[in-house]
Amino acid sequence: MANDELKQAWKIPEPTLRRLPWYLAFLKLMKGKGETFVSSTQIAKEINVDPSQVAKDLSFVNISGKTRVGYDICALVDVLEDFLGFTAQHKAFLFGVGSLGAALLQDTGLNQYGLEIVAGFDVRKELAGTVVNGIPVFHLDDFPAKQKEFGATIGVITVPVDKAQEVTEQIIAGGIKALWNFTPFRIRVPEHIVVQNTSMYAHLAVMFNRLNSINH
Amino acid sequence: MANDELKQAWKIPEPTLRRLPWYLAFLKLMKGKGETFVSSTQIAKEINVDPSQVAKDLSFVNISGKTRVGYDICALVDVLEDFLGFTAQHKAFLFGVGSLGAALLQDTGLNQYGLEIVAGFDVRKELAGTVVNGIPVFHLDDFPAKQKEFGATIGVITVPVDKAQEVTEQIIAGGIKALWNFTPFRIRVPEHIVVQNTSMYAHLAVMFNRLNSINH
Repeated sequence: MANDELKQAWKIPEPTLRRLPWYLAFLKLMKGKGETFVSSTQIAKEINVDPSQVAKDLSFVNISGKTRVGYDICALVDVLEDFLGFTAQHKAFLFGVGSLGAALLQDTGLNQYGLEIVAGFDVRKELAGTVVNGIPVFHLDDFPAKQKEFGATIGVITVPVDKAQEVTEQIIAGGIKALWNFTPFRIRVPEHIVVQNTSMYAHLAVMFNRLNSINH
Repeated sequence: MANDELKQAWKIPEPTLRRLPWYLAFLKLMKGKGETFVSSTQIAKEINVDPSQVAKDLSFVNISGKTRVGYDICALVDVLEDFLGFTAQHKAFLFGVGSLGAALLQDTGLNQYGLEIVAGFDVRKELAGTVVNGIPVFHLDDFPAKQKEFGATIGVITVPVDKAQEVTEQIIAGGIKALWNFTPFRIRVPEHIVVQNTSMYAHLAVMFNRLNSINH
């Protein structure tokens, strides 16, 4: 418990980390329109968040606004992009070049946000040696060798549900530190491994349910 | 306030809706292995959630377990798939056939989870008339006419950030009831419209931050 609290103290809250990219998207829009300064009240109004929340969220970032004029937009965009890790390149491997996996290899947007997928892996022999959107696909057996070559820190998991845990363990054994799990399976990992779940199907379920609620 | 509370009473909590697909994925695995019954304790252990939470979550679904033997897996899988909306087909239009948009059109997995994307729209004239993964792409100007033809209820938004709000308003004016927003922009909608935000870049930010934390 005490250990958990200690952790929380230096950790930026996840809701803050999830809101900061919203602020960033809005700030980039304003920058594009030639605006130079923005107040936390303006951001709050646009994003539909409490102004005190915006100020609190931005207090985690190393920038301060000026009384009356607010934040320098250009500086805030730079600081936020850097803070959120979007300016660094994080090397990643993608596991499972199926429908969703291949789709993610196609998405060049991830690259602009700091995720550089350098290779894909699959157990299907016919996929080994193919290239998707310039990214080479290898057989899963080649992962340890390729990891020595590339030194990826992130693993994107898009394998079938029944392989999720097995592949997770292989990935971690290979030295990958963070897992971006797109499967609806709740993977189990040692404490020092970072897991980010993005279950698109869970989001679909929430949307369907809300949609049915308004129709009844 | 009273109105909000009233709403909450018949609304299934979002965390529950997000956990149910995890249970479903695990149950399908067990079913595949030939298992017939499962207890909430087993599910809880596997998913790493409190057993009382599992029982509470499943109480929203119309099924009851038997003392000692637990839940009938086949029945629970069917009920959950139905409850989550994965067995119905929800017609959707996708707006913005860029990198991410085209990638989502490629993902046939969405179809298996009840989302049937029947058409894509884009403002780029050269994309009109093309077909991605069997799905036709039209010019955005054709949306009202195509909406009369297809009657989609869901709009998937993958347009650039600076077009997100404008396109949102067009989509709603065209009669779409729920928006799946993949842009990092916080779109504003009338109260009766359902919005589900899936900001992959926000998830990336959380992952990068946690990754940096363990390295320091």
